[in-house]
Amino acid sequence: MRTLHGEVQTPVFMPVGTQGAVKALGPDDLQRLDYEIILGNTFHLYLRPGHELIRDFGGLHQFISWDRPMLTDSGGFQVFSLAPLRKISEDGVKFQSPLDGSSHTFSPEYAVQVQEALGADIIMAFDECTPYPAERDYVKKSMELTTRWAARCREVKSDNGQALFGIVQGGMEKDLRDMSTKQIIDIGFDGYAVGGLSVGESKTLMWEMAEHTLPLLPEKSPHYLMGVGTPEDILKGIKIGVDMFDCVMPTRNARNGNCFTSRGRVVIKNARHKREDIPLDPDCDCYTCRNFSRAYLRHLYSAKEILASRLLTIHNLAYYQRLIHGARKAIEAGGFLEYYAALSEGEGLK
Amino acid sequence: MRTLHGEVQTPVFMPVGTQGAVKALGPDDLQRLDYEIILGNTFHLYLRPGHELIRDFGGLHQFISWDRPMLTDSGGFQVFSLAPLRKISEDGVKFQSPLDGSSHTFSPEYAVQVQEALGADIIMAFDECTPYPAERDYVKKSMELTTRWAARCREVKSDNGQALFGIVQGGMEKDLRDMSTKQIIDIGFDGYAVGGLSVGESKTLMWEMAEHTLPLLPEKSPHYLMGVGTPEDILKGIKIGVDMFDCVMPTRNARNGNCFTSRGRVVIKNARHKREDIPLDPDCDCYTCRNFSRAYLRHLYSAKEILASRLLTIHNLAYYQRLIHGARKAIEAGGFLEYYAALSEGEGLK
Repeated sequence: MRTLHGEVQTPVFMPVGTQGAVKALGPDDLQRLDYEIILGNTFHLYLRPGHELIRDFGGLHQFISWDRPMLTDSGGFQVFSLAPLRKISEDGVKFQSPLDGSSHTFSPEYAVQVQEALGADIIMAFDECTPYPAERDYVKKSMELTTRWAARCREVKSDNGQALFGIVQGGMEKDLRDMSTKQIIDIGFDGYAVGGLSVGESKTLMWEMAEHTLPLLPEKSPHYLMGVGTPEDILKGIKIGVDMFDCVMPTRNARNGNCFTSRGRVVIKNARHKREDIPLDPDCDCYTCRNFSRAYLRHLYSAKEILASRLLTIHNLAYYQRLIHGARKAIEAGGFLEYYAALSEGEGLK
Repeated sequence: MRTLHGEVQTPVFMPVGTQGAVKALGPDDLQRLDYEIILGNTFHLYLRPGHELIRDFGGLHQFISWDRPMLTDSGGFQVFSLAPLRKISEDGVKFQSPLDGSSHTFSPEYAVQVQEALGADIIMAFDECTPYPAERDYVKKSMELTTRWAARCREVKSDNGQALFGIVQGGMEKDLRDMSTKQIIDIGFDGYAVGGLSVGESKTLMWEMAEHTLPLLPEKSPHYLMGVGTPEDILKGIKIGVDMFDCVMPTRNARNGNCFTSRGRVVIKNARHKREDIPLDPDCDCYTCRNFSRAYLRHLYSAKEILASRLLTIHNLAYYQRLIHGARKAIEAGGFLEYYAALSEGEGLK
């Protein structure tokens, strides 16, 4: 995948930098972890410090000192999750800032404008992330609104080198997913995302919808499964053709002391780790695992030391990176299914 | 200064790693900042995770992954600050853990034993840090108790290569400082610390006592002014012959958004920094100043991002390091007083 700030190998996982920082890490840490692309949240950055300020600093890359590719979401997901402090109309969404109660409106045109000010390599169309559960009638209307908004985003998007991705909605209704996909493809985007999944439905239903939708996307464009997921989800997604993932799970879990390892989850605060003189993950070569014992990490976590968040986040992101890099290598060697099967037999995906 | 883990150039500032971590930083950050020695707090580490656990991990160096020199305090200062939850006797101090209310006793012998388990390169005699203000009679008794405790520490100290430093007390009474210094020197230590200052007295009084006491210490032994201080204090201390300093000020201030710069203090949360596209300190070459604007740092601080603590701590410690390195160079060149005078004329010490 080629972007303004260089190439990105796929499949790829994008750490979430909600407010202009991947929580607990600096760009130095992310570069050492070999992450090629990160995600910024338009909604949060719009509210604070403001997209105009960031534009005046030369864009988000410059502002946060990240010179590799970046993607911003449209702000839609966060705006909709403000319910009942938001109101949807054909024009857009009016909402109150959770920071100071002030009134704001996001329209498709404005979401593009804000994202152009932020200047990420990839920006997203403004959509309604359909809630779950929802009546079929609502899902259909919401999907159609997303289509009209997508067309408006495409229409106003400047020819500035930023890629614009469209988002497929349609809830848990296969025929609506079909319609949405067709409409979004007809408008024409640089990449396609599947939205509205992982919003409360069962994993079975989520994968039923993802498996149904992914094959409908244009083969040559990047496929992005938004907000997903667990390590198991990542491999399932790759299997059905997903190229891009993002999720707060590795970073948020780390801050809560919940760590992914090749031998299964480690809840670092548990008493069993108090005297454990082995790395968090003996099969990991990240900074944390090369230098510290589980006992020390548990101590830092128990003592509420800030360093615990950084070290555990470094590890969880190293774990995701290894998972994805392994998948890439396996795909190149034609052995992805074997890779997936081998990992499924162990404890590493649990 | 030679230690088990290598040489330390003096004068030197020791960042405080209270609970086995210099708050918000990893050993990687400290090494990039070129810090040669850090301080650990015996009291905190004794309570959590426990000195025996740390000993079983090969000592504090191994436990926290720091292979350079380290100093531990004796725990005395923290134990005394627990008042009224502690009781002093000739034998030692009985106190209740602020973590769980459990009962503990620190004696001079036990303080040495705990510090031997931690295994720092330099350990400190167990003293009573005389409170201020205090009656002369109390100060004298307290000073004499510190002397008897110092002798007991010296007596039980193993011949294991760890350096043991004695601590001079005597409150704000010059003749008692004289007596204390003589008694502590008579016992004989590898280095000498001036304790009981910066405990609430005026700066004038503090420097009067320090200036009185420093010349009484053996010229060839390291001189350590405990718990000091501001940038101005550091230079004043160097001027009167102090070799070693420690203070939570650069790290604690950083976490509160209070930054030292060559152009004076910067309180990063202030609105004036909101759009400031210059480094925190334009004359600083630390990671933070090389990569980020004041506006971004203010944003991180306002958004309560963990990264703010790390970046501001890196900068404040870089500031202290530059101050001290400048002093060393000036001393070597025979121009310390000029260095001090030049800095005093600017904003950098404010």
